[in-house]
Amino acid sequence: MNQAPKIRLYVTDLFAAGYNIILEQAPSHYLAHVMRAKEGDAVAVFNGQEGEWLASVASISKKAVTLQLQHILSKHKASPDLWLAFAPIKNKVDVVVEKAVELGVSKLLPVYTRHAVVKSVNMDKVTSYAVEAAEQCGRHDVPAIEEVKDIPTLLGNWPKDRILLFADESGKGADLKTLLPSLPAGKYGILVGPEGGFSDDERKALAIASQVKAFCMGPRILRADTASIAALACVQAWLGDWEERPNFVAHFETTGT
Amino acid sequence: MNQAPKIRLYVTDLFAAGYNIILEQAPSHYLAHVMRAKEGDAVAVFNGQEGEWLASVASISKKAVTLQLQHILSKHKASPDLWLAFAPIKNKVDVVVEKAVELGVSKLLPVYTRHAVVKSVNMDKVTSYAVEAAEQCGRHDVPAIEEVKDIPTLLGNWPKDRILLFADESGKGADLKTLLPSLPAGKYGILVGPEGGFSDDERKALAIASQVKAFCMGPRILRADTASIAALACVQAWLGDWEERPNFVAHFETTGT
Repeated sequence: MNQAPKIRLYVTDLFAAGYNIILEQAPSHYLAHVMRAKEGDAVAVFNGQEGEWLASVASISKKAVTLQLQHILSKHKASPDLWLAFAPIKNKVDVVVEKAVELGVSKLLPVYTRHAVVKSVNMDKVTSYAVEAAEQCGRHDVPAIEEVKDIPTLLGNWPKDRILLFADESGKGADLKTLLPSLPAGKYGILVGPEGGFSDDERKALAIASQVKAFCMGPRILRADTASIAALACVQAWLGDWEERPNFVAHFETTGT
Repeated sequence: MNQAPKIRLYVTDLFAAGYNIILEQAPSHYLAHVMRAKEGDAVAVFNGQEGEWLASVASISKKAVTLQLQHILSKHKASPDLWLAFAPIKNKVDVVVEKAVELGVSKLLPVYTRHAVVKSVNMDKVTSYAVEAAEQCGRHDVPAIEEVKDIPTLLGNWPKDRILLFADESGKGADLKTLLPSLPAGKYGILVGPEGGFSDDERKALAIASQVKAFCMGPRILRADTASIAALACVQAWLGDWEERPNFVAHFETTGT
């Protein structure tokens, strides 16, 4: 039980030592049949509010796997307060969600835009991509996921105290290299448009919204998924938590570096 | 002929007004059958050295499409001198190559590492991903692509005057936020490891190589493809050409922004 568990699961139960968690069908199947877990095996669990806990497999039945909570492994750490508003792209929603979660986004806001090819989003799928990425990347929470909104609704609901960094494909925005170091710590969101760009109406609405700051990512045309990942990386490096170090360094301690 | 062509093709021919280019089988098929081009249609072409030229479809036969070169559209601009050394990941080589090309990498160096799952790379496929991404993103060149090397060979051949920024998953590297603004303009490469991390031997070789500077991308575990894209974005934003603006702004001129 001293070794760090290799399996991490997101659960919605609250935690207390000795309590049992009856897993739902998908994680039960994953544990029993994909990972071939046995009774007594260690599993790490997180619920988005109480850090990461050690649990052990208490029983495996045809219906469900039950875990028993042991003790806390690491104190809860919320992901940085950074939102990503993105126009879903055909066959790429999984990529954007997976990468955004790994890069530590706290809320995903799919936006419907005039020129978007994808007009609806399967929320169950988006949630499952987000949970899987959160389990894999070691974070203690799963980002909130909003229903799809159009640009006027997004801007109408956008908090007054949160800057919306807008990836402006027209090239008229600020350099990230100049913009990011000039911004204070605080609440941010990033908006990345669809492959066809924004419509004139949408661009006008963005131009007059007081929270919006446009930026540019250089001379090449980035696909929408590339743009989301690239913008998130730069914003996390400068305004997020990239000064913190991973908490899984134990197995590197013996190397020569 | 005044409109910017919607189709961009990479060719290996040299350019001169009036010359004909007989396209190979794949681009011929693409033009004739996917894009349903007709004689007289405009196509933009680039060859990696002479900028972007306007050509028109001169003839379409069963065997090949022939283009006739008209005149230069934009002067040649080389991509920034930034290399990416990456451990190829199962089913993700296309993603890494596509994103790296969009983000303006000048050379791709697949590396074989001890813990890598993928032990060989289909060079033809890597080349075709790179060409397609270069055509799509508007750059004037296709990155050079080296044969797969192991870490000792990569380091043994690494130029003395090129800094190798190493994405160190152990968390011991510098913050990008501190490191990047401290570095002068110059020649750089990025090294991103495989999903299993580097072996002790590989880490020792990296630790003693004088050109290597390790950096860290925060507390979460990034997948290898996410790490490549994220690192490239930050390095291009700070040391690359992201202060330049896209040269395709014409259709945004009428918007209100």
